Amino acid sequence: MMLNNKFHGTVIRIMFLWVLCAAHVMADGEPDTLPSWKAGPVKTGIIDFVGAVTDATGPGYVPPAGRIATFDNDGTLWSERPVYFQLLFAIDRIKALAAQHPEWKTEQPYKAVLENDMDALAAAGEQGLLQLLMASHAGMTTEEFSQIVTDWLASAQHPRFQRPYTELVFQPMLELLDYLRANGFKTFIVSGGGIEFMRPWVEAVYGIPPEQVVGSSIKTQYEMRDGVPVLVRLPEVNFIDDKAGKPVGINQHIGRRPIAAFGNSDGDLQMLQWTAAGDGPRFMLIVHHTDDKREWAYDRDSHVGRLDKALVEADKNGWTVVDMQRDWKRIYPAGE
Amino acid sequence: MMLNNKFHGTVIRIMFLWVLCAAHVMADGEPDTLPSWKAGPVKTGIIDFVGAVTDATGPGYVPPAGRIATFDNDGTLWSERPVYFQLLFAIDRIKALAAQHPEWKTEQPYKAVLENDMDALAAAGEQGLLQLLMASHAGMTTEEFSQIVTDWLASAQHPRFQRPYTELVFQPMLELLDYLRANGFKTFIVSGGGIEFMRPWVEAVYGIPPEQVVGSSIKTQYEMRDGVPVLVRLPEVNFIDDKAGKPVGINQHIGRRPIAAFGNSDGDLQMLQWTAAGDGPRFMLIVHHTDDKREWAYDRDSHVGRLDKALVEADKNGWTVVDMQRDWKRIYPAGE
Repeated sequence: MMLNNKFHGTVIRIMFLWVLCAAHVMADGEPDTLPSWKAGPVKTGIIDFVGAVTDATGPGYVPPAGRIATFDNDGTLWSERPVYFQLLFAIDRIKALAAQHPEWKTEQPYKAVLENDMDALAAAGEQGLLQLLMASHAGMTTEEFSQIVTDWLASAQHPRFQRPYTELVFQPMLELLDYLRANGFKTFIVSGGGIEFMRPWVEAVYGIPPEQVVGSSIKTQYEMRDGVPVLVRLPEVNFIDDKAGKPVGINQHIGRRPIAAFGNSDGDLQMLQWTAAGDGPRFMLIVHHTDDKREWAYDRDSHVGRLDKALVEADKNGWTVVDMQRDWKRIYPAGE
Repeated sequence: MMLNNKFHGTVIRIMFLWVLCAAHVMADGEPDTLPSWKAGPVKTGIIDFVGAVTDATGPGYVPPAGRIATFDNDGTLWSERPVYFQLLFAIDRIKALAAQHPEWKTEQPYKAVLENDMDALAAAGEQGLLQLLMASHAGMTTEEFSQIVTDWLASAQHPRFQRPYTELVFQPMLELLDYLRANGFKTFIVSGGGIEFMRPWVEAVYGIPPEQVVGSSIKTQYEMRDGVPVLVRLPEVNFIDDKAGKPVGINQHIGRRPIAAFGNSDGDLQMLQWTAAGDGPRFMLIVHHTDDKREWAYDRDSHVGRLDKALVEADKNGWTVVDMQRDWKRIYPAGE
């Protein structure tokens, strides 16, 4: 074959670019896929799973309707320290309402909140916590509550990072959500957090619409007020979407079993078990908080997001465990 | 302008076809839109509403994410006579289980079912009905129940029409579901019927996936059986998705207010009110059963699907009322 010099030079340049490009593909799995995930078995595992369920000619193919992926929220999609952000919301709300409740100055657990007395708050226990949640989350209409959450998020700042809470979401998980949706997955939140606390902001932040949010809830009641129908939030627990409640919530809201589930704590163990027990390809992932510098490091002994039994199960069953320090190039969209 | 004869002839033919086509459009609203709906204000009203919310330059535009449409099931998407089909399922199920329960031969309300004694069954009242529902709907896993429903639908026949129940769905409503989805709507069922009774078949029959079904439910419990996780159905009511429960169920599952709602009885009144009370364009429709020959005719005095208060409200508020005899060319996919 005869080539003139100019054409020969062009071919060399194209081949050189192709080699560069191929090297990039080999280093990172795929170009532009999950850029905040470091190369390694975790990233490869995600990409292989998605490849298997979307390959229409392969044995692991799952039609789009069955591509259900469920994500815990606290500690999986955003941080959960020093305590669950929803509890910080409740505390701020109690303080905002204190002027209307002079009796709270002398009454626990409200007194503890108003005086920032963490020991007294801890002493109030679960019952005290429930009282605070009801006082801050009930008594208004659903639309009023949505506005209260929206207003709080617009002004509140995280005590350590001095940034809005919605900026403390995990950049690698945002990329994972996008990647799954680009491959025909329907992404759901399945969180122990309040369903109505999440809905006002998760669509803008995670691209997850309100109808794909499963969470804990209090009861609501339909009422006519001056001829206008409203849903009033009652101080009564309706459903706790945590631990064994997660498969129940998944079944109640979604009605099919996920093929992929993502969590970070023992509260997610049953969701991961329920997902794993289905037929065909499955992907179970635990985010292990190992990065004390960029975020926090905690597991077995933590009071928030305790990860103990689920880590044992992950090891036993070969579930994927993300080591945040090792596997994530970046934690937050705006940070390192 | 000079045209040769051949070209002139072609133009004439095209113009003739265009006139024919335009005449068809004028007669039916739009070509091939809702073919089983007779021309008239009901059909025009549906098409005008969809046109308004999808016109990106118009004042009534609603982005796709907000195009939520909710449909009652019994009497709105399929028939509900002589009684709700789910009750016929419960009765068949009691008979199938009778061999394992010899005590039912002498115990009400089971005895009434086994002896087809409708007077004794009626005398058992709501409490008796609840007993029958629990005996037929609880005590198995969610997957077992789904299979039981699927098997029943594959063999059971409607007493009057001698056809499977899933063929007694309303052809005009199937077209309406398709039409709304083709225009970016997300279609949901919001039914007083059992959520797990509907999910096994509504995707194939209505094109509505299980995660877009809202209904009544009993409690379920997560258990490990020989190392395999299951959800067990408990004989305890969890939620009644009827009347004032419908807006509660809509809020719990969907988390946004529908812009269009479709019902047929007083059980749908609060869903229609809740939908109507939102901002922007709204569409509320009631299916009025007026066709004794092709289906059934009933409203104010019916024990099944009573339509009384909602009809008064529809008239007062200008909601759309379908007169099945007047507005529908065809009732069932296979029939007239």
